[in-house]
Amino acid sequence: MTVRIGVIGVGMIGQDHIRRLTQVLAGSDVVAVADTDAARARDVAGGLAGATAYATGEELVAAPEVDAVLVCSWGPSHEQYVTAAIRAGKWVFCEKPLATTEQACLNILDAEVSHGKRLVQVGFMRRYDPAYRALKASIDGGEIGAPLIFHSGHRNASVPSHYTADMAIVDTAVHDIDVARWLLDDEVVETMVVTPRKSGRGGPLQDPLLIMLRMRGGAIVNIETSVNIAYGYDIRGEVVGETGTVELAESATVLVKRQGVVNARVPEDWRERFIRAYDIELQDWVDNCRRGTCGGPSSWDGYAATVVTDAGLAAAKSGGWAPATLRDKPMIYG
Amino acid sequence: MTVRIGVIGVGMIGQDHIRRLTQVLAGSDVVAVADTDAARARDVAGGLAGATAYATGEELVAAPEVDAVLVCSWGPSHEQYVTAAIRAGKWVFCEKPLATTEQACLNILDAEVSHGKRLVQVGFMRRYDPAYRALKASIDGGEIGAPLIFHSGHRNASVPSHYTADMAIVDTAVHDIDVARWLLDDEVVETMVVTPRKSGRGGPLQDPLLIMLRMRGGAIVNIETSVNIAYGYDIRGEVVGETGTVELAESATVLVKRQGVVNARVPEDWRERFIRAYDIELQDWVDNCRRGTCGGPSSWDGYAATVVTDAGLAAAKSGGWAPATLRDKPMIYG
Amino acid sequence: MTVRIGVIGVGMIGQDHIRRLTQVLAGSDVVAVADTDAARARDVAGGLAGATAYATGEELVAAPEVDAVLVCSWGPSHEQYVTAAIRAGKWVFCEKPLATTEQACLNILDAEVSHGKRLVQVGFMRRYDPAYRALKASIDGGEIGAPLIFHSGHRNASVPSHYTADMAIVDTAVHDIDVARWLLDDEVVETMVVTPRKSGRGGPLQDPLLIMLRMRGGAIVNIETSVNIAYGYDIRGEVVGETGTVELAESATVLVKRQGVVNARVPEDWRERFIRAYDIELQDWVDNCRRGTCGGPSSWDGYAATVVTDAGLAAAKSGGWAPATLRDKPMIYG
Amino acid sequence: MTVRIGVIGVGMIGQDHIRRLTQVLAGSDVVAVADTDAARARDVAGGLAGATAYATGEELVAAPEVDAVLVCSWGPSHEQYVTAAIRAGKWVFCEKPLATTEQACLNILDAEVSHGKRLVQVGFMRRYDPAYRALKASIDGGEIGAPLIFHSGHRNASVPSHYTADMAIVDTAVHDIDVARWLLDDEVVETMVVTPRKSGRGGPLQDPLLIMLRMRGGAIVNIETSVNIAYGYDIRGEVVGETGTVELAESATVLVKRQGVVNARVPEDWRERFIRAYDIELQDWVDNCRRGTCGGPSSWDGYAATVVTDAGLAAAKSGGWAPATLRDKPMIYG
Repeated sequence: MTVRIGVIGVGMIGQDHIRRLTQVLAGSDVVAVADTDAARARDVAGGLAGATAYATGEELVAAPEVDAVLVCSWGPSHEQYVTAAIRAGKWVFCEKPLATTEQACLNILDAEVSHGKRLVQVGFMRRYDPAYRALKASIDGGEIGAPLIFHSGHRNASVPSHYTADMAIVDTAVHDIDVARWLLDDEVVETMVVTPRKSGRGGPLQDPLLIMLRMRGGAIVNIETSVNIAYGYDIRGEVVGETGTVELAESATVLVKRQGVVNARVPEDWRERFIRAYDIELQDWVDNCRRGTCGGPSSWDGYAATVVTDAGLAAAKSGGWAPATLRDKPMIYG
Repeated sequence: MTVRIGVIGVGMIGQDHIRRLTQVLAGSDVVAVADTDAARARDVAGGLAGATAYATGEELVAAPEVDAVLVCSWGPSHEQYVTAAIRAGKWVFCEKPLATTEQACLNILDAEVSHGKRLVQVGFMRRYDPAYRALKASIDGGEIGAPLIFHSGHRNASVPSHYTADMAIVDTAVHDIDVARWLLDDEVVETMVVTPRKSGRGGPLQDPLLIMLRMRGGAIVNIETSVNIAYGYDIRGEVVGETGTVELAESATVLVKRQGVVNARVPEDWRERFIRAYDIELQDWVDNCRRGTCGGPSSWDGYAATVVTDAGLAAAKSGGWAPATLRDKPMIYG
Repeated sequence: MTVRIGVIGVGMIGQDHIRRLTQVLAGSDVVAVADTDAARARDVAGGLAGATAYATGEELVAAPEVDAVLVCSWGPSHEQYVTAAIRAGKWVFCEKPLATTEQACLNILDAEVSHGKRLVQVGFMRRYDPAYRALKASIDGGEIGAPLIFHSGHRNASVPSHYTADMAIVDTAVHDIDVARWLLDDEVVETMVVTPRKSGRGGPLQDPLLIMLRMRGGAIVNIETSVNIAYGYDIRGEVVGETGTVELAESATVLVKRQGVVNARVPEDWRERFIRAYDIELQDWVDNCRRGTCGGPSSWDGYAATVVTDAGLAAAKSGGWAPATLRDKPMIYG
Repeated sequence: MTVRIGVIGVGMIGQDHIRRLTQVLAGSDVVAVADTDAARARDVAGGLAGATAYATGEELVAAPEVDAVLVCSWGPSHEQYVTAAIRAGKWVFCEKPLATTEQACLNILDAEVSHGKRLVQVGFMRRYDPAYRALKASIDGGEIGAPLIFHSGHRNASVPSHYTADMAIVDTAVHDIDVARWLLDDEVVETMVVTPRKSGRGGPLQDPLLIMLRMRGGAIVNIETSVNIAYGYDIRGEVVGETGTVELAESATVLVKRQGVVNARVPEDWRERFIRAYDIELQDWVDNCRRGTCGGPSSWDGYAATVVTDAGLAAAKSGGWAPATLRDKPMIYG
């Protein structure tokens, strides 16, 4: 059985997912697209054999040939498309963020809970990265004892000039926050932001940041975001347990010796570092659709991430600890 | 366009490729299977929607719905199926070895040359391994100067009791031989085999071996095969150039610190180490079939590998250097 | 010229320095010892050709055959011996801490300033560790741009049962504090302590700790102390600059592959990790004495470390940032 | 007790050992020097408090104030000075080679055997390198099972224009040969030399070389010498055992991330790589002299190295295996 997928939002990310579904992964057809830019939707549909361009995301969701919906539109529009898909009882993969406000996330949770079972997967692709999976396997396998601290480093070579310190929390650290919740299997209860001297490379941008999360069970997550660090895209992670540690290894596949040093490549950007994670993530979603199930990061995970990044913004303003308060977890999220 | 593939030989490797084509990769359908065990062919076909089980490989090759043929049968049968596919003008992917004798390889070359263009890709998957590709990119990019020596290490945790010292050359070192030819872009002119003291773990088996190849351009390839080394499956490679070196890095994705050491996993077997290479290899073949082209390791590469392993067997017997003599390279192989 | 050294305090550390001076390093004689345990002083002197056991540290300092004094006594007694040596105009090497209270440190500074030039070196041996020196050389050489964050990790396999959370700051993190001041060439202005969930391995001990320092120039130092972590003695350090980073490499000299992993030894304790640093440190002091100069960490460094650890204790109590306020730096400290 | 040392040959190496003895190590005085260049001997003696310049090495050996002799003169003169020291019953440390011909080595063995116990240590400093010691400890500790192959790589950034292919065996690979005998605790029975294409960086010099040694117990040593490789001084070593391997790790103490790569320094030359080995080696000799014993590499080791390098020269000429035949090992060599 082939899953027939409709894609809402066919900008850069949407088109990349279409490429992935049609040229890299098994088991799906892209049968429908929609975009607020109707011409772009028609162009993209034209490049796909037998795909229809719909005028709106809602029409795409309603189309009978669409089994599952991939939401890649602008963040503020996620709520309307995801809830529409839930009401139609269709599988939906929503790129992060699930929604841009806590209330919008709660509305999605309510819709899914009303439906009675999970339909939504959120695009936190790091959970599919082989290195992070090995990290989690070591923790879960008891190799390091109970985890106490998670050091996470998120470094970009550069960011565009419109990037703000808020984005360092909401767009950048959100990945570290999600992966922390997943690795430690725990929720964040409060957060604090410490601001080192600004890098001279980012103009007025407050960069880097140190973001601390206290988990319900007491573990501390210690996140560094450095988004203009020039040398490359470097994702670091080390979990300190009671009897040992586990950390992400360097990702280079070869070592070159020349001119007085041995060197190994650092990835240039997130595409290079996480391309496999995106592939595995979406294949997993397609496979689940084919099996009639839903897995991976849930709406709950998307909601929790938003609550924590909101707390991070408050903490950055106050300079002290800011609480992250979650509603009770509905049964369907385990 | 979807490539319609027929698979000849549906034992372990054939079934694994069918899983790959249907569950992992994009762009193909498996529409036909054949096997000397007719019941197995029917079973496998039964698990695939709309696939036919043919009585013989030749019938499968002739079937009009088959665009391309994947040969996974017993080595001695490769020649007949590959030449049948060539005569039918169909794309063919042949698992290594291309054929088990030099003459059989030459017969395939003759058939393909008569056809007038390449149709055959041989399953030397290491050329698709991301680490080997980075090794080659460093060499080709001039990072280490002209290559002079290639140290290659091929280590298996264990081999079955029927494994012989000949197999260390023909089945094991053949991968190092192919990758040496590809990395150095050169042919082997002679080979020598040096035998260290036998490992106590292999019974009567002469293991390890040191196999040296002298390339036409004068570079030396220095291969170690250790096929009962217990600790894991470990593929090593370092190319020594005039001004630098490049080597395969360790492949582990995480480092664990516990009990007095920092440790990193060594792959357990070739599946773990090269699963991605197999996926990329076969996707490349499928993509080429869709584009109407043929790439990757050719019949010539399969032929050359056989000539060199034959020379290796002669060298192991004589204790001295044994020549590897190739016919002139037909134009279609570049 | 040979430096004639008197050692005050001949417990474990004092005896180890005597071994170092007499069996490892060049250029000195140990001619005098003193200890509150007179019998121990006599025993140790008896094992050294021509050494005298003095009844008190003050008598040792006054002895005409003593060129330079090595203070290895109990911390609270450091002030009296160091000031006595300064008044006598003799070179003095004082094991850390310089003194156990800020006032005692100030008294030493006053004495040295009155003398008019540096006489005191404090035993912060990490500044002599080849790895830390390479770290500093990279920063000072501009390889990573201006430093913004220093991540420091200080891990012990275990500590004795009398070890307290205060000691994690005063005895353990004090090394990270000194090395941070030295690497960043800056002073600490405030500090904060974050407490993760307690490790189950340390009984009532609050372990691990995260200690943050804000430097005058705005850089943040992010220290983890984990003093019961079982797996070994592991000193980590990474400086994040505007355009790059530099970090301590693993210290193992060989890699072993066995039983499915490649492993490298982690040091067992501080002796294994820093034995060379101690040797180089003391040779440097001896060499300086021979040349009639004084170098290395100064009384000012010892004083600043005490002010910062006091601030750390206050921060641990308050949960917020605590200021570290230094007096004006006297000219003799550069 | 202080060992009073006389140094024969005060060129670059002799002066470096004098610096070591007087400024780095404990327990010795340099009391006498001799050199064929009498003015140089007087100059060097003048810089040492109370040292005498002797007209000949023989006079130095005979001087009553000389307890032990350090031979750093030209290789062909080693025999005469070492045998003189043996006849005088004095400890002697002889830089490598022990002597430049097999016969000269045999004469030294005969003299020492006549004396009845070991007096001579030969300057194979690698045995004192902490990394090689860890390698040997892993092997001897049974971590990798019985050793079968030793891969050794000896790379220099460059060599002077008078350097010859013979020197690659006699001066360069001799270190790998000695360390192989020591690591494997076995003697070489035959050797072969394989010549890759010449590097363009060495003019007429045949570089690199692959030198194979077959040990009495059957293990094979696989040595690469690359002496004009530009990128640095790089000593590699991996021992392949029946169940595992152990290899020298990279020696850098820090990792720098900048400009798209993580890099680690490769040593510039043998001084940088082995300075500690030289220090430890000579301290061990001094300590042994103080204790009245003799350890480290013996005259037998110096003799065996010369026999093997002679075999290597023969093998390079013949292209085949050349035997290395040793006399029976006298009892005093264990």
